[in-house]
Amino acid sequence: MNGYFITFEGGEGAGKTSVLDRVYYTLLEQGYDVLKTREPGGIEIAEQIRRIILDPKNTAMEERTEALLYAAARRQHLVEKVLPALEQGKIILCDRFIDSSLAYQGYARGLGIEEVYAINQFAIKEQMPHLTLFFDIEPKKGLARIESNKERERNRLDLENILFHERVYQGYQILLDKFPARIKVVNADQPIEAVEKDAYDCVIEHLNK
Amino acid sequence: MNGYFITFEGGEGAGKTSVLDRVYYTLLEQGYDVLKTREPGGIEIAEQIRRIILDPKNTAMEERTEALLYAAARRQHLVEKVLPALEQGKIILCDRFIDSSLAYQGYARGLGIEEVYAINQFAIKEQMPHLTLFFDIEPKKGLARIESNKERERNRLDLENILFHERVYQGYQILLDKFPARIKVVNADQPIEAVEKDAYDCVIEHLNK
Repeated sequence: MNGYFITFEGGEGAGKTSVLDRVYYTLLEQGYDVLKTREPGGIEIAEQIRRIILDPKNTAMEERTEALLYAAARRQHLVEKVLPALEQGKIILCDRFIDSSLAYQGYARGLGIEEVYAINQFAIKEQMPHLTLFFDIEPKKGLARIESNKERERNRLDLENILFHERVYQGYQILLDKFPARIKVVNADQPIEAVEKDAYDCVIEHLNK
Repeated sequence: MNGYFITFEGGEGAGKTSVLDRVYYTLLEQGYDVLKTREPGGIEIAEQIRRIILDPKNTAMEERTEALLYAAARRQHLVEKVLPALEQGKIILCDRFIDSSLAYQGYARGLGIEEVYAINQFAIKEQMPHLTLFFDIEPKKGLARIESNKERERNRLDLENILFHERVYQGYQILLDKFPARIKVVNADQPIEAVEKDAYDCVIEHLNK
C-alpha cells in the first residue's frame, strides 16, 4: 500500500463536502494522483444496501440493523474502490467514513461508540484512514448555514433537531480524544477559502511526513 | 420474556428442516403455543437484505460484506418476529440462527468464529437461543441424502465441495465445546421418525426444566 487514505468528517453544514471538492481539484492541479469518493461510491452492491437504508417505506428499520447495513456498504466500497486505489498509490479523499458511524450511531443514537467501532473494525479490518480532517463548527452555526442555502437538498439528518446535532458534535469530541494522532481539527467557522487553505495545508503537511 | 427460543442447526442433508416441521405440528397438537420460522421469515427488510445476498449478479460480494448483511437480516427478523413472540410467551422454533453464521462463515469460510460472533452479538444483543438442537450426521452421509432426494431444490451451499462441508462440521464441533449447556446433540443418522422423537423429547425435557 503506497497510497494515502484521507477522510473528511464533521456535522451538517460544516462545509466539508465543498472543501473536499476544492482540495481535490487543487491536488490534481499540483499533479497529485488523487481520487475523491464517498460511500456508497457507485459500487453496485453498496448502492443496493444504501437503497434499503434510505427507502422511506422501511419505517420498521431498527437502529442496529441500520448500523450493520452501513458497515456492510462500507466494507464493499472499501474493497472495491478504496483498497485498489491505495495499491495504485493514489491519495483518496473520502467524504465521511468510520467516524461518522461512531459519532452519529454510536454516540448520538446511543448504540455505543465501542460497539459500533467493533462492527466497523470487522468491516474495515484495520484499514483506518491515515488522516482524518474534522471540520469544526458549532452545530447551531452549521445548521444556520444549511437553512440559508436554499439550493441544498434537505436530507433526513438535516431535519433532526438541534439536540441531536449537539450530540453528534459531542461524539466527535470524544473521537478527537480517542484518536489524537489521526484526527486533525480544521476550523470550519471561517470563509470557505480560509477553510480550504487550512485543509489543504494539513493534507500537504501529512503527505510530506 | 416468558417464551422459549429454540434453534435447529446442522449441516446440509441433516434433516433438520423436516424434523422442525414435525416437531412443530406435534407441539401444536399437544396444545403448546408455538411459532416456526426461519430467517428472513417474511420480514420485508430482512427479505430485501437476503435478495442482495442471494442475487447471482452480485459476484463481487465480499465475505465480510456478506457476514454483515446476514447479521443485519438476523437483527431485523429477531426484532420484528422473534422478540414479540417471546413476549407473548410462545415457543419459537427457528431453522438456523447465529450458530450457522459461526460454523459456515466464521469457521468454514475462515473469517474467525470470534469475529463473526462479535458482530452477531451486536445484532442479537445477548438474545441467544435458550436451546439449540444440533442434528449430527457425517457430512458425506448428509450430502448423499441430498443427492438421492431429486425433489429438493439445490442451493448454493449444497454445491460446495465435500471439504467445505467437512469444515462446517468441524465448526459445529467447536461450537459444541463452546456452548455445552445450550447446544444439545441429536443423532440425525437414524430414520426420520427416530430423529423426530429424539428432538421432540429434548425440547420437552427443556421446557419442563
